Amino acid sequence: MEYSLNSKKVAAAARKMLADRGIKVEQIAELTHFLQSKYYPGLTMEQCIESVESVLVKREVQNAVLTGIQLDILAEKGLLEPALQEMVANDEGLYGVDEIIALGIVNVYGSIGLTNYGYIDKMKPGILEHLNDKSTGEIHTFLDDIVGAIAAAASSRIAHRKQAEVEEKEGK
Amino acid sequence: MEYSLNSKKVAAAARKMLADRGIKVEQIAELTHFLQSKYYPGLTMEQCIESVESVLVKREVQNAVLTGIQLDILAEKGLLEPALQEMVANDEGLYGVDEIIALGIVNVYGSIGLTNYGYIDKMKPGILEHLNDKSTGEIHTFLDDIVGAIAAAASSRIAHRKQAEVEEKEGK
Amino acid sequence: MEYSLNSKKVAAAARKMLADRGIKVEQIAELTHFLQSKYYPGLTMEQCIESVESVLVKREVQNAVLTGIQLDILAEKGLLEPALQEMVANDEGLYGVDEIIALGIVNVYGSIGLTNYGYIDKMKPGILEHLNDKSTGEIHTFLDDIVGAIAAAASSRIAHRKQAEVEEKEGK
Amino acid sequence: MEYSLNSKKVAAAARKMLADRGIKVEQIAELTHFLQSKYYPGLTMEQCIESVESVLVKREVQNAVLTGIQLDILAEKGLLEPALQEMVANDEGLYGVDEIIALGIVNVYGSIGLTNYGYIDKMKPGILEHLNDKSTGEIHTFLDDIVGAIAAAASSRIAHRKQAEVEEKEGK
Repeated sequence: MEYSLNSKKVAAAARKMLADRGIKVEQIAELTHFLQSKYYPGLTMEQCIESVESVLVKREVQNAVLTGIQLDILAEKGLLEPALQEMVANDEGLYGVDEIIALGIVNVYGSIGLTNYGYIDKMKPGILEHLNDKSTGEIHTFLDDIVGAIAAAASSRIAHRKQAEVEEKEGK
Repeated sequence: MEYSLNSKKVAAAARKMLADRGIKVEQIAELTHFLQSKYYPGLTMEQCIESVESVLVKREVQNAVLTGIQLDILAEKGLLEPALQEMVANDEGLYGVDEIIALGIVNVYGSIGLTNYGYIDKMKPGILEHLNDKSTGEIHTFLDDIVGAIAAAASSRIAHRKQAEVEEKEGK
Repeated sequence: MEYSLNSKKVAAAARKMLADRGIKVEQIAELTHFLQSKYYPGLTMEQCIESVESVLVKREVQNAVLTGIQLDILAEKGLLEPALQEMVANDEGLYGVDEIIALGIVNVYGSIGLTNYGYIDKMKPGILEHLNDKSTGEIHTFLDDIVGAIAAAASSRIAHRKQAEVEEKEGK
Repeated sequence: MEYSLNSKKVAAAARKMLADRGIKVEQIAELTHFLQSKYYPGLTMEQCIESVESVLVKREVQNAVLTGIQLDILAEKGLLEPALQEMVANDEGLYGVDEIIALGIVNVYGSIGLTNYGYIDKMKPGILEHLNDKSTGEIHTFLDDIVGAIAAAASSRIAHRKQAEVEEKEGK
């Protein structure tokens, strides 16, 4: 049978992989709220959820989610090449492919998201703290960066939207 | 006279521009120390200074320094095209060219520096707080990102070096 | 008067700057057609123009256009710091800030545009050949990369759209 | 046993993976020669080989090599999640994680390598043509981008070196 890309299948697979790894859209939205509520005091969780959903619709994001989580899962099963296995299993600080893949997600709403991604990745609020708990035996070397990057991209989207609202009000 | 690149001239110009804008190598090194001292308790300011100096030797970094600070200076003089002038003069949050140029600096020592750059850019310790003080009348829209990115790249370099030291000791 | 971003003003300024530097949307669309017609034989110039227009609506692209062309103009006027002036005026091969800014444009439609940008920048078809003609006295160190990056981003957009069309037909 | 990174092991594993997938340093060096010989007429294969070797010493490059080839191998074995499996196995044009990982390699010697990477990826000279031959049954979705990116980074390194030689001669 000839290959032909099925976008709906890719989208569903990315959603399923996130869910199977214990990530809820609400938890990513909480990170976005953490990042943006100081700039937009009236920001609701509904708006953050809507923004995360919009990020998850992007093909670039789905590809990153599928690839990164796949590598986490293979590391949990011990199926990677030994040198790579060790680095991914131990979230090696000098291994930066997880950051590179996260960058692809952040860029979807422009470079303004870069600092939010870095900030949240260090602060590890909410679900990110759990993902970085090494005592669970789970491996989330890629997933924590992916979740942080999605939250950062959703924050950028909110910033663009809020500006559009202001300009509409001002009749610009 | 035919053009021919003069690397020493470029290096000197970048150093001078940083100095003219009030930035000392020590102040960038303090940011690096802030970022890395928790991971390497014995880390000295001398090591941080040496690392910042090594980052400043890189042509990619010098080009970013010259270009970014030039745009800050032109904005202070009011010489940019009106729409660009407004965005740079007001450090517009939806203007991300400063982050893009900073990314070029961070990448010099690999993607592991991305999160340090984002973190420090949000926390604004040390000299970054001063650079973000809008009451001075000075414009540092690019400079604060550049300084943070140099500190992050210097941090990555330290991480690589410390690993090499450990492996040498272990006789690997 | 308090600052407040005016998106329409920024968009108009970016369009005007491109026009003032002699660039027509049609010329960028021709580059997109050059890149994509072998994959989509029925691709029309109208579709390419529509895609370029969509790229130009993006704030990230407008910011890159304004900043890059501004630097070209200042170099033509001899207003840059001497070391930077020399590099920009001579399109120095070891100066890579133009590529970094172009990358910000390409990323707007995902990383799949990277190779198209690199390819067209080397091949220099259509308007890119003129922009690289050093005998004119004009300086387009940033503009040629910007134009190539817009064409590459528009190509990525077409690739995504064509896939959507196929899937719709197949009833996926 | 406590984890501790072993850089020599990582370096050796990356070299072995390239060799096991049929890639010789000389073949990457030929790509670098293809890219740079028009600018430096006296450029020898020995210089290109030395430059490729220097690129392969970089940890960022080794990490990208290990991760990318690992994904190719898993796709050959059919071990990836179905949606990801299909995209990697078919070198799906709308899947851009291979380009993102390649970008991490190119950046090691600065953004000037971006266009060389894109150009060679489209032209597919030398070994790249073989890697893109879909009739072999082998999967090189990541490897072809990785090889092109290493050749592009080695080209950037040569450009920097040649400049240093010129300046030394001129007594700058």
